[in-house]
This record gives sequence, structure tokens and C-alpha cells, in this order.
Amino acid sequence: MEKLFVIKIGGNVIDDDKNLTAFLTNFSKIKGYKILIHGGGKIATKLGDKLGIESKYINGRRITDAATIDVVTMVYGGLVNKKIVALLQSLHCNAIGLTGADANIIPATKRPVTKEGIDFGFVGDVNTKELGISKLELMVEHGMTPIIAPLTHDGNGQMLNTNADTIASSIAVALSSLYDVRLIYCFEKKGVLESVDDDNSAIPLITKDIYQNLKDGNKLFDGILPKIDNAFAAIDNGVKEVLIGHADDLIQNVTEKTNGTLIK
Amino acid sequence: MEKLFVIKIGGNVIDDDKNLTAFLTNFSKIKGYKILIHGGGKIATKLGDKLGIESKYINGRRITDAATIDVVTMVYGGLVNKKIVALLQSLHCNAIGLTGADANIIPATKRPVTKEGIDFGFVGDVNTKELGISKLELMVEHGMTPIIAPLTHDGNGQMLNTNADTIASSIAVALSSLYDVRLIYCFEKKGVLESVDDDNSAIPLITKDIYQNLKDGNKLFDGILPKIDNAFAAIDNGVKEVLIGHADDLIQNVTEKTNGTLIK
Repeated sequence: MEKLFVIKIGGNVIDDDKNLTAFLTNFSKIKGYKILIHGGGKIATKLGDKLGIESKYINGRRITDAATIDVVTMVYGGLVNKKIVALLQSLHCNAIGLTGADANIIPATKRPVTKEGIDFGFVGDVNTKELGISKLELMVEHGMTPIIAPLTHDGNGQMLNTNADTIASSIAVALSSLYDVRLIYCFEKKGVLESVDDDNSAIPLITKDIYQNLKDGNKLFDGILPKIDNAFAAIDNGVKEVLIGHADDLIQNVTEKTNGTLIK
Repeated sequence: MEKLFVIKIGGNVIDDDKNLTAFLTNFSKIKGYKILIHGGGKIATKLGDKLGIESKYINGRRITDAATIDVVTMVYGGLVNKKIVALLQSLHCNAIGLTGADANIIPATKRPVTKEGIDFGFVGDVNTKELGISKLELMVEHGMTPIIAPLTHDGNGQMLNTNADTIASSIAVALSSLYDVRLIYCFEKKGVLESVDDDNSAIPLITKDIYQNLKDGNKLFDGILPKIDNAFAAIDNGVKEVLIGHADDLIQNVTEKTNGTLIK
């Protein structure tokens, strides 16, 4: 099978023009098949503030009301997505910007109100078995590089806000039937750190055995555990390997000798 | 050659949810290959007003400054485009939203400052010989329906604002080497009216001879002349026929017996 890189970047890259240009310059140099999933960044919050739309949170999780889904559709699907696409085009990477509604690549279901009565609003959970992988395959096989915004749709005309990490892992899993997928999460650390204060302590490899040992020894920062659990979930569903690393290390992290933490 | 409909809708359809849903319901029923180009509507102006971005005009033409290109990228490329795509998906039409930057379908050149010193700002004139027709062909041949926002890019990372009528005719011309193209302009009248006060006086057919006779007899409203001139320019460059008609008459206007004005 051909290799495919499914790469996710978050707000720390998107919100800084210099970081974004540096990252995209590296991204454009990756040979072979690749898909980029981007988060939203702080622009949506800033725009919402200017428009007098109050950001609402319940238990630290953002509520997407009707005004907010319009704002994130504008910012994630319009401003951020097209900024990335236009920059990549200038770097001779034939980027094509997509939301989950486009070509029906990511159908989703509006999250039901929780037992505790919390209504997250227009938030979508991916219908993982219904992803439009044939359309993504068609694009990458014809020289296009999909750039995916963290938005899905419910099939009834409603856009939905969806976590970019989840979109990245869903797409990586779905495309693992066609490609050898390496899923790369770019974040602000060099990898899973053995010592949380030492940015040069990234653990190069985590297998299930190593993970168990690290957990048994209480060696990991709690905040990283869900990321590793999600990585193993992706691997259990077909993804060949997951890499957690710094956005600046992208060029190294698509090779065999990675700088970040490889999970397999 | 297969038939292809290139259809343009403007603000009068986009700004009214009921009109838009009715139009898209009809659009979704068209069999065969089709591409939709949409204008912007008044939402961008409203959003600009809310954000305190002043709309600037010179000689009645809007100036697209740096703040405005961000607003139109958000509204045309994000909000309006994804609203149309999500609605069409709910109608079982596999829509894919695009700007001219996506898959590099519409490269453009920033309009130079005029001799009179007028700087239109981030406005793009289409590089008509460089359109990405192979990518549009690939999409329509694989069951996708491109939905194109009135935005292009300069190849150096800058999005540009471009007239939707111009995009529609450029795409119609470029695809006429591959398809029998009927270019349909949907507007608020039933066609080119023989009597400007009588909405039922649409002239069914205009050929070059008929056009000359109508002009000689001063029978046409001045405002419609550029539209007809543009239609003949498209036909001279390969488009099979151009139809000017009401958005409500779309279903009739993709048949042989049209309700609007057929120009050929």
C-alpha cells in the first residue's frame, strides 16, 4: 500500500502568521499523499466577541449555539481554510479546502442532550462508518491535497462544529483500508515528554507494553493520557502508526527517524 | 458531447432563505452535469457594518480593502457557500464547495490601479487561459456538483474578490471544449423583456440578427445590453447557448422549451 500522511494542526500554529507560513512551507515539501486537518484557533472567538456573541461554556466545553455555528462556519470554513489553501497554492501544493459537508466527506450526528441535561448545541459526532473515502481517494490520486476544516454536517442541511482531533483520527482510520496511514498530531511540545519540564525528553517510541510500564511508574503527565489512548484506538482500528510531535519538526516526523513520539 | 449546465445565481436568491431553498430544490432535480456559481448577497455588507468596516465605493464600484477581502472570504467562501452545500447534500445532490483557490480552479490577477488612479484593492481578473478545467471535469465525472463562490486567488497566497457573472462565463467558456455548455443567468426578471414594464414580455430567442434589429429599433432597456454582449462573447468563445431567465423558472430553463431568453 502507498503511504498517506494525515496531519493535524491546532490553534498554536494557525493563530500566528509566521508559524503558519513556516509550517505550510514544510508541509508543501512532503512528497506523496497527504491530508491536512486544521483546528479553529482564536479568530472565531475574537470575531464572536466583536459581533457581541457571547462564548458559552459548560464544564469547560464550548456550547455552539445558532449564532456560533455561523461564526465558526465563516472562520474555520472560510477565512482559515482559504488562507491555508491560498498559501499552499503559492507553494505549488494543489490544496483543496473542504468541510465535512463538501462531497459529503464527513456525515455526522448532532450530539444529543446529555443525561445531565447539557445541550452542546450544533456539535457533530462523526458517523465513522459513512465517511466519503472514495472522494478523498479520488482527490489524492489526482494530485490534490485535501485541507479539512473542523466542520461536519447532519445530512439535513445543518453544519456542525466538530473537534479537529476526532476528524483527523476518523479520517486516518477510514483511509487505512486503502493506505499505510501515519497520523501526525502537531502540537506545542516535541512529543510525549518523560519529564514534563524538559522539552527535550520526548519518548521516541511507545508501544502498548511501554505505555503500560510508563503508566505503572506514574511517569506520564495526566493530560497526555487521553491523546495516547486515542492514538491506540486509531491503531486498533487500522492506522499503522501515530506520531505526536512539534509542528516545527514536521519534515523530520514524516521520515523513519522521527523527532517526536511514535506510537505503534 | 455531454450537456453541462453552468448556472449563476445572485443576491436576490441567496438573501432570502425561502427563495434559496426553493431554488436549490429545483437545482437538485436537474439531471446530468451541472455547476453552480453564486454571488455574495447582502450578508457581507451587513457583517462588515457590524464589524465597523466601512463599505467604500468609487464610481459605484466597491473597493475591496484588506479588511473587506477577509469579510467576503468568510461570508462568500464560508457561510454562503457551506449553507448551499449543506442544503444540497440534504437534497441528495453531492455538492462540493469551492473558491478559485481550491484545486487552483480559478487563478486570477489583482486588478492594476487604473490610469485615473483608482485602486480597486483585492479584486481579481480571471486568468481565463489557466482555469483548472481538468479538476472540474474530474469532479463532475465522479458525481460531484461544484458550487463556486465569487473568489479567486493570485497564486501568491492572496484571495481576491471576483464578479460572479465573470466567473460563470469564464468557466462556461473553458469547459465548452469538453461539454455542450448552456450558461444560465438566473435573475429577477423572466428574461430579456421586450417591454420593460411587462414581466411577461420575455423575448424567447435572440440571435445576432435579432439583436441587431432590436437595437436598431431601440427596443431594449440599456441596462440589459452588457448582459447580452457578454452572452455573445461567451458564445463566440465556444459556449453553445446562454439563457437569461428567472430563478423560479430553472426547471423549465434546462429543457429545450425555455421560459426565459435563449441567446445563441
